[in-house]
Amino acid sequence: MDTIVICSGGLDSVSLAHKVAAEHTLKGLLSFDYGQRHAKELGFAAACATRLGVPHEVIDIRAIGAALGGSALTDDIAVPDGHYAEESMKVTIVPNRNAIMLTIAFGMAAAQKVDAVATAVHGGDHFIYPDCRPGFIDAFQTMQDRALEGYADIRLYTPYVSGSKADIVTDGAAHGTPFAQTWSCYKGGTNHCGRCGTCVERREAFHSADVIDPTLYDDPDFWLTALAARGA
Amino acid sequence: MDTIVICSGGLDSVSLAHKVAAEHTLKGLLSFDYGQRHAKELGFAAACATRLGVPHEVIDIRAIGAALGGSALTDDIAVPDGHYAEESMKVTIVPNRNAIMLTIAFGMAAAQKVDAVATAVHGGDHFIYPDCRPGFIDAFQTMQDRALEGYADIRLYTPYVSGSKADIVTDGAAHGTPFAQTWSCYKGGTNHCGRCGTCVERREAFHSADVIDPTLYDDPDFWLTALAARGA
Repeated sequence: MDTIVICSGGLDSVSLAHKVAAEHTLKGLLSFDYGQRHAKELGFAAACATRLGVPHEVIDIRAIGAALGGSALTDDIAVPDGHYAEESMKVTIVPNRNAIMLTIAFGMAAAQKVDAVATAVHGGDHFIYPDCRPGFIDAFQTMQDRALEGYADIRLYTPYVSGSKADIVTDGAAHGTPFAQTWSCYKGGTNHCGRCGTCVERREAFHSADVIDPTLYDDPDFWLTALAARGA
Repeated sequence: MDTIVICSGGLDSVSLAHKVAAEHTLKGLLSFDYGQRHAKELGFAAACATRLGVPHEVIDIRAIGAALGGSALTDDIAVPDGHYAEESMKVTIVPNRNAIMLTIAFGMAAAQKVDAVATAVHGGDHFIYPDCRPGFIDAFQTMQDRALEGYADIRLYTPYVSGSKADIVTDGAAHGTPFAQTWSCYKGGTNHCGRCGTCVERREAFHSADVIDPTLYDDPDFWLTALAARGA
């Protein structure tokens, strides 16, 4: 199955790239520059492509991000601290971002005549992101089947959609993913901050998977406070 | 129903903008610059927005068009002459273009909290464009309902989806659409060429609707030759 992997340079999508390279035929990595506060994670996507010996394409959709606006990931709104699965994390949503990126990826897959587009949506995102849920994934596949009928037959491959982020850590470790060469932090400093939603989620996932976390955090113990605060 | 209309500056989408302005609440026109050979039609979209007193936003997706490639509308492949509903017209397809533009429009609609996105897909496009068919439109709506669940409830409004282009001419005339202020030709000259697929389709639609065609064509009678050639 010739596959393009949508890769942000984060833990999930880099693990997915290593999984696809091991189990299928990885044809390339696709990243999106949507005006993220920091481009640091895109460098980790590029490094992953080099490591796996495939092309890396970055599509500039900053004009779209600017037109949609309203998100802490692209605007000057403060990034909230705390656990990811909280109401305050809704501010990190770019409206319709997954659907936009996936339709572009399917266009590229059709142009390049590959069999599948892989994306690392996972169960931990379901609570606040409707466009990461299985119902969305199924509906997206149906929509694309009809959009490309007679021209292309492309599968949306989401092996992590029913798993947790800890499951991704386990799977990534099984495929030799160099986790230190992935980036999760929303803040883009020298080290991971350890306090933002994705840092807390990342730290917790390694703990749950019982895999050593090679990440350097500025505040390595904050995740315990965040978990206690939500009564976990 | 507060509505954003996707408007290319062509006959169909300008007629749709006038329909929505008359029957609903037109909140703005949205155009895409995807690296068309000529930007002439975007000028007619801008003029339509001015005429109807609403904002006009042009989103630059040229980086996406360049990455997808392969179409006579963006590359240096010759634009074919002849009737639109022919095999040779497949070359004018940008892979997944409608799905890409619609997901971006839904993102904007969510950000601006409007009720609907309107697009002028019509029955004449069904033969070669699967992403203009009712089955695609229905599947797209389902996909978006799931993608935006809990955040927004946006309708995809496609009043022309089961009609012909002649029906659009009839409807446009009923709403006072200034047809001379619309652009269809793929070639982008001073006048409409009269020979390319959309020119032939346009000329035929006015004839079928029994509405006077105010368009200046360089070759005003070619459409009869094209129709005869396909045995119509």
